[in-house]
Amino acid sequence: MAIKFAKRMDGLKGSEIRELLKLTERPEVISFAGGMPAPELFPVEEMKKISVAVLEEGGRQALQYTTTEGFAPLREKIAERMNTKNMTNITKDDILVTSGSQQGLDFAGKVFLDEGDVVLCESPSYLGALNAFKAYCPKFVDVPTDDEGMIMEELEKIIQTTDRIKMIYVIPDFQNPTGRTWPMERRKKFMEIINKYEIPVIEDNPYGELRFEGESLPSLKSLDEKGLVIFLGTFSKIFCPGYRLGWTCAAPEILSKFVFVKQGSDLQASTISQMEVSKFMDVYNLDEHVEKIKSVYVKRRDVMLKTMEEEFPEGVKFTHPEGGLFTWVEIPSHLNAKELMPKCIEKNVAYVAGGAFFPNGGRENTFRLNYSNMPEEKIVEGIKKIAEVLKEAIGETAKA
Amino acid sequence: MAIKFAKRMDGLKGSEIRELLKLTERPEVISFAGGMPAPELFPVEEMKKISVAVLEEGGRQALQYTTTEGFAPLREKIAERMNTKNMTNITKDDILVTSGSQQGLDFAGKVFLDEGDVVLCESPSYLGALNAFKAYCPKFVDVPTDDEGMIMEELEKIIQTTDRIKMIYVIPDFQNPTGRTWPMERRKKFMEIINKYEIPVIEDNPYGELRFEGESLPSLKSLDEKGLVIFLGTFSKIFCPGYRLGWTCAAPEILSKFVFVKQGSDLQASTISQMEVSKFMDVYNLDEHVEKIKSVYVKRRDVMLKTMEEEFPEGVKFTHPEGGLFTWVEIPSHLNAKELMPKCIEKNVAYVAGGAFFPNGGRENTFRLNYSNMPEEKIVEGIKKIAEVLKEAIGETAKA
Repeated sequence: MAIKFAKRMDGLKGSEIRELLKLTERPEVISFAGGMPAPELFPVEEMKKISVAVLEEGGRQALQYTTTEGFAPLREKIAERMNTKNMTNITKDDILVTSGSQQGLDFAGKVFLDEGDVVLCESPSYLGALNAFKAYCPKFVDVPTDDEGMIMEELEKIIQTTDRIKMIYVIPDFQNPTGRTWPMERRKKFMEIINKYEIPVIEDNPYGELRFEGESLPSLKSLDEKGLVIFLGTFSKIFCPGYRLGWTCAAPEILSKFVFVKQGSDLQASTISQMEVSKFMDVYNLDEHVEKIKSVYVKRRDVMLKTMEEEFPEGVKFTHPEGGLFTWVEIPSHLNAKELMPKCIEKNVAYVAGGAFFPNGGRENTFRLNYSNMPEEKIVEGIKKIAEVLKEAIGETAKA
Repeated sequence: MAIKFAKRMDGLKGSEIRELLKLTERPEVISFAGGMPAPELFPVEEMKKISVAVLEEGGRQALQYTTTEGFAPLREKIAERMNTKNMTNITKDDILVTSGSQQGLDFAGKVFLDEGDVVLCESPSYLGALNAFKAYCPKFVDVPTDDEGMIMEELEKIIQTTDRIKMIYVIPDFQNPTGRTWPMERRKKFMEIINKYEIPVIEDNPYGELRFEGESLPSLKSLDEKGLVIFLGTFSKIFCPGYRLGWTCAAPEILSKFVFVKQGSDLQASTISQMEVSKFMDVYNLDEHVEKIKSVYVKRRDVMLKTMEEEFPEGVKFTHPEGGLFTWVEIPSHLNAKELMPKCIEKNVAYVAGGAFFPNGGRENTFRLNYSNMPEEKIVEGIKKIAEVLKEAIGETAKA
């Protein structure tokens, strides 16, 4: 007998993004690759006070185990806060605290997917979600998208012709990787279809609160009448990722399954992290903090879009995100973004090639740019460098 | 279509221990049920200083994402520390930081188990591990144990007659639930068998450092010559559980699979928790802290064993743990510990009935007692109450 891994391990490889992040750790690299928030906005001074206060007021509790569902006051605050963001009637009993919303993705796979089951998702979609689901060996059927997100006629056609659909995974707000947002009409149509066919929906919503312009739109969860939508939230983008705290909000029958799975997976999220974030929300105003983040990110987005407009050669298109962290670039179809990466790295600039975001491959002429993590002058410098690489590549192919 | 969960969810139910803990949260209950450390020993004052120092020296880093493998200085310290506890040549590259060792158990299941694969384990074994593995739908084959742990002749017989064995799960030091420790001879024999049949071993070692008496014995990992042993460690019992930090130490080929799985599961362990625990180890002496814990736990164990000797009726047996957190009680075979629980709860005392620790059921005349979480006078009081329940039950059945 030699060591034999589970079949699922054949299909799993390290996330290209995480691997790439290692390459781009050199301080001289202008990285648009990760999805990292701006560290200069983290409430470091505030958390110094908070961490002392939590240990003073309840140190023994903070360092001890707590319940699997999570620290009750934090769950209450999450529920209250969701209710202020056009949700209603959410209570702490609808909330499970997870290790980032990434863990909610893993749990969704664990709770719903048998080998060979079908997951519907946008095309392209968030790589980290696809990787989480892959551990449960599903098939992905990707639903075509346009500038307004998932195309509902295509969705319904696929539902009618596909067996074993277990869940639909979507990011309706400032999608990763495209930055696109579903308009109201799409949301309504989506919920009509979902209610008709009664399919569980994983609504991944890490960026919804980071809207810079346009009108705030209701989450799918807020339109959910049959308890079909599982909403994944996170503190990573509205606060900071270092605590690894997110949450799952779902109907009782579904949430109880997520809780069981949480028990076996790691018992509970960090007690002290939960108490600290809860305390922060008591003492400070998280909404004000989010406003501060938005005021910085909108400028970075503006600079990135403006520089791309000025510098990128003809034939290159990109999205105009109304919020969130990402824009999505499409280069002429004969070019391959992955192949251009080494040239970018040589110039000390990085993006994530888009091919990996397509669950069934394809579309190598795309890449994702993050604008939240770099100061404005670096964004200008980095985009100019990418523009040079693109111009050169287009020039070369024109000559050839 | 209605909501349909994955098949694995049929077999999963909430851990009896976690559910029970909820019942025993009333402050008047003397609970020997959980596996909780003594909160009065947590280094609360030290962590106040540490948390401020971490945020002052590297606040932005602490609140940001880090690598999936974990915060490098913490991984280095874990490796160095393992090398001082009769391990050799462990480096940070052999270490993945996990959310408690519970997460290492989940990952072991994810990395190794296809549906129907066989896990060998001790009988009884740690309930939380069995639940973690169950998510991957294996069959459990339990290897008989005696007062010295797993019986090696039985193990070899089972290996020779069982198909699809994917891994062996063991807790050789102060086992949960029995408190038993494998002597040196068993360890050597075990590794001979493992090397012969080349089966991966999950060595769960949360309590190994908490030895009160007798000679320290080498971990299986330290005897591992073929890279077959996956060692799971945790800060929960030697420091505190609130940070949810543990680690997996394994050969590169195996560890890289765990890292892939960590990416999809929750990206990484909490950055700030890792930096704080690392800093604690820089500034304070973790070994001294462990000595302090041991000096308290040994007294609690002594009081518990002495009170049981004095108070428990004839026909009741219990183990004499040389370390760790638990002792294991066997009552006359016609009694059922689960059925006696309501009577105990009525008297405000709680244990965990033993049946659930047997992967394939049985042995309802057993229960687990934890002595780490209650002060000595409460231990005396609680054991006397359990003794009353036992005497009454034995008396009743004698009359009947």
